[in-house]
Amino acid sequence: MPKVADQWLKDVLIALYQRQAVTRDEILQVTGLNPASASHALQYLLAVGTIQKMGSLKSSGGRRRELLKLNPEAGYFLAMDLDTTRIRFALTNLIGDIRYREEQDLDFGNEMKIRCLLDGLERVQRNLAPWQRARVLAVGIAHPGVVDASGLVTAVNLGWCKFPLAEQLRQVTPLPVFLETWCRTYILAEKWLGQAQDCNNCIFVELGRGVGAGIVAADHYVEGSNQMAGEFGHITIDMEAADECLCGKRGCLEAIASGPNIIRQYLQLLNGSRRGNKGMQLSAVLEKARNDDPLALQVVNRVSRALGLGLSHLVLLLNPGLIILGGDLMQGEDLLLPRIRKELAMHVPGFMRTTELRVTSLGQDIGLKGAASLAFRNSVQNSDLLKKLCRPLSETLDTRKPLSGPRLARSLTRA
Amino acid sequence: MPKVADQWLKDVLIALYQRQAVTRDEILQVTGLNPASASHALQYLLAVGTIQKMGSLKSSGGRRRELLKLNPEAGYFLAMDLDTTRIRFALTNLIGDIRYREEQDLDFGNEMKIRCLLDGLERVQRNLAPWQRARVLAVGIAHPGVVDASGLVTAVNLGWCKFPLAEQLRQVTPLPVFLETWCRTYILAEKWLGQAQDCNNCIFVELGRGVGAGIVAADHYVEGSNQMAGEFGHITIDMEAADECLCGKRGCLEAIASGPNIIRQYLQLLNGSRRGNKGMQLSAVLEKARNDDPLALQVVNRVSRALGLGLSHLVLLLNPGLIILGGDLMQGEDLLLPRIRKELAMHVPGFMRTTELRVTSLGQDIGLKGAASLAFRNSVQNSDLLKKLCRPLSETLDTRKPLSGPRLARSLTRA
Repeated sequence: MPKVADQWLKDVLIALYQRQAVTRDEILQVTGLNPASASHALQYLLAVGTIQKMGSLKSSGGRRRELLKLNPEAGYFLAMDLDTTRIRFALTNLIGDIRYREEQDLDFGNEMKIRCLLDGLERVQRNLAPWQRARVLAVGIAHPGVVDASGLVTAVNLGWCKFPLAEQLRQVTPLPVFLETWCRTYILAEKWLGQAQDCNNCIFVELGRGVGAGIVAADHYVEGSNQMAGEFGHITIDMEAADECLCGKRGCLEAIASGPNIIRQYLQLLNGSRRGNKGMQLSAVLEKARNDDPLALQVVNRVSRALGLGLSHLVLLLNPGLIILGGDLMQGEDLLLPRIRKELAMHVPGFMRTTELRVTSLGQDIGLKGAASLAFRNSVQNSDLLKKLCRPLSETLDTRKPLSGPRLARSLTRA
Repeated sequence: MPKVADQWLKDVLIALYQRQAVTRDEILQVTGLNPASASHALQYLLAVGTIQKMGSLKSSGGRRRELLKLNPEAGYFLAMDLDTTRIRFALTNLIGDIRYREEQDLDFGNEMKIRCLLDGLERVQRNLAPWQRARVLAVGIAHPGVVDASGLVTAVNLGWCKFPLAEQLRQVTPLPVFLETWCRTYILAEKWLGQAQDCNNCIFVELGRGVGAGIVAADHYVEGSNQMAGEFGHITIDMEAADECLCGKRGCLEAIASGPNIIRQYLQLLNGSRRGNKGMQLSAVLEKARNDDPLALQVVNRVSRALGLGLSHLVLLLNPGLIILGGDLMQGEDLLLPRIRKELAMHVPGFMRTTELRVTSLGQDIGLKGAASLAFRNSVQNSDLLKKLCRPLSETLDTRKPLSGPRLARSLTRA
């Protein structure tokens, strides 16, 4: 039953990926596999070197239970994070640790040149050691657009309309390419590698140049019927507001609470127009608010009111256990978070005030880690890539000893 | 492997429940089971009589493909719908068809007497034929409250605070009791028996005495981290509004758009206070609006604006393929729907206007059907109830011929 064996391997690998170190009992419990199937899969993965023993736990009864983990160097991913102001490239290992990275600034609003992506990807590939090269599984990309059914990317901020990104990348790499909207890769990163590991209902809210949400509900990643779920930035937050949004509406949350709109509002209060101080930074507005500048405080208060109301909709509709905030605005965590919490409490009835609000700890690399998580998630569901990931390490890494159980490996129908 | 066999049976039964008539190929495709497992499960279910052959389809190649369906009389459920103004009791068959029903009005806001539920349930049980009695699997209940981790129900409208409903019902029935909040049973009914069968991202919005939503995202039913997802009625829709809500806030969607609040707003416009015309019905306000009464139209327009904005949040956050509206307000479908659509379009950017908006066709029995769906869903996941559902029909129904394949049935480890 080759198909079932793939399923066992996939279940076990995902359980290990999400939990880092687990016992055999935990694997049985998490995967729901029957003991024989799980044991087969574990023996096979140990034999080929995709998973490793990492010690043992002494249980209360005195029995020692073995701890297992993924071999972090059993596979690699090329990760790309197309932020709206910066492109980041990386080589990550199987569990999303960054082995090589570089980044490059972009002019906001200018068309993204594909050459620039191809060159970056080539440079990352040049940095691969020979034994890594044989184990690179896929490319994962976090981007700020939407992907249609035929895989074409539309991203206003990058100047792309139905752009064949994956096809273009084939010029420099034969690897499969997996694409996902940034906010959804962020919640993947939090769910698989960050603070949301144990939370089946959690939301990542990006507050930066754009505003968006990545949603996990009932332990499933919410994409929506056209892969457009999480357009949190475009909910109308103030029907009467004059603030124009890039989407064509007025009063969107993003039109009030994004980084550039915070600067715009401050300049409009200061000068009566959005002109002047063109090079002003978000950090400067926040610093002024810290120093009790009344105009900057007025903006911070308005932004917090808008965010508190917007977040209350997420809480009431989805009852998440955890909302994680990230993005440039979190430089102003000290100013914004207490105000947002206060507003949020005003819009959520007492019986529903159970959602925890935190700030991401994955930092600037969250997009790269999310892209790597995306690539992992897709790789274990693809039988060719699963085969590559489960290729005996001895074949690609000459310094290792020969396998202890090659007969076992052959006995499983993995060829 | 008795555990795996249960899993096969469950997968096949769910596939049949959701699709009514399917071929073996479709079952393989939907369940992802391997052909041997599916074939075992189907043979077993046919032998015991839980599923039936219902004819065949001629495929393009000329091969005839057998159509299978659930035997509707292989199991029964007791269903209860605790609306805020009415209790409905029913006996349903396996696929939610109502075999016996009765209902009873309630005084809104008065405490629900448990005696009244026990009496109703007893009357339904008295109406069971002896051969039905042996095959009743469970009680399903749609209620307007929230259930905590220990199964206690809090429902403000019924006057219950941490009420041990399931425990109380044990006085009159030994059957397992499954409870769910009304809106979530409604989307279950639509997803399994109604218009949302093929939709993996769909929402039911109840607009009646209360306002709430039942959400299915990524083909999973969203309960939230404390079983409180879908509190659509309590999102703040108008920060400046004076309308008080039962939850203690002001400007909630429910405080503007629920049935009683529509009547209240009309009376306030008419009399300057909410007093007078105490017996006024929602239908009367709607009729006045149809006859161009300016005050009634003013209320209808405000309600539509609030609902359009609220629904736009659902569309932007969850990108559902379908939103189904139900509840008392839908008597005013002719007035409300065109206005709601117009408002909705104003708050949703063009690229996201893909959600279909429909009115439920399940009528007043949607709560009973939802309660029956809930009971089915839980019953096939419970090995004792699954065993009861798969008991050979010949054992409980003397008039039927003996089984054609008893040996097969015994050969599977179902004892």
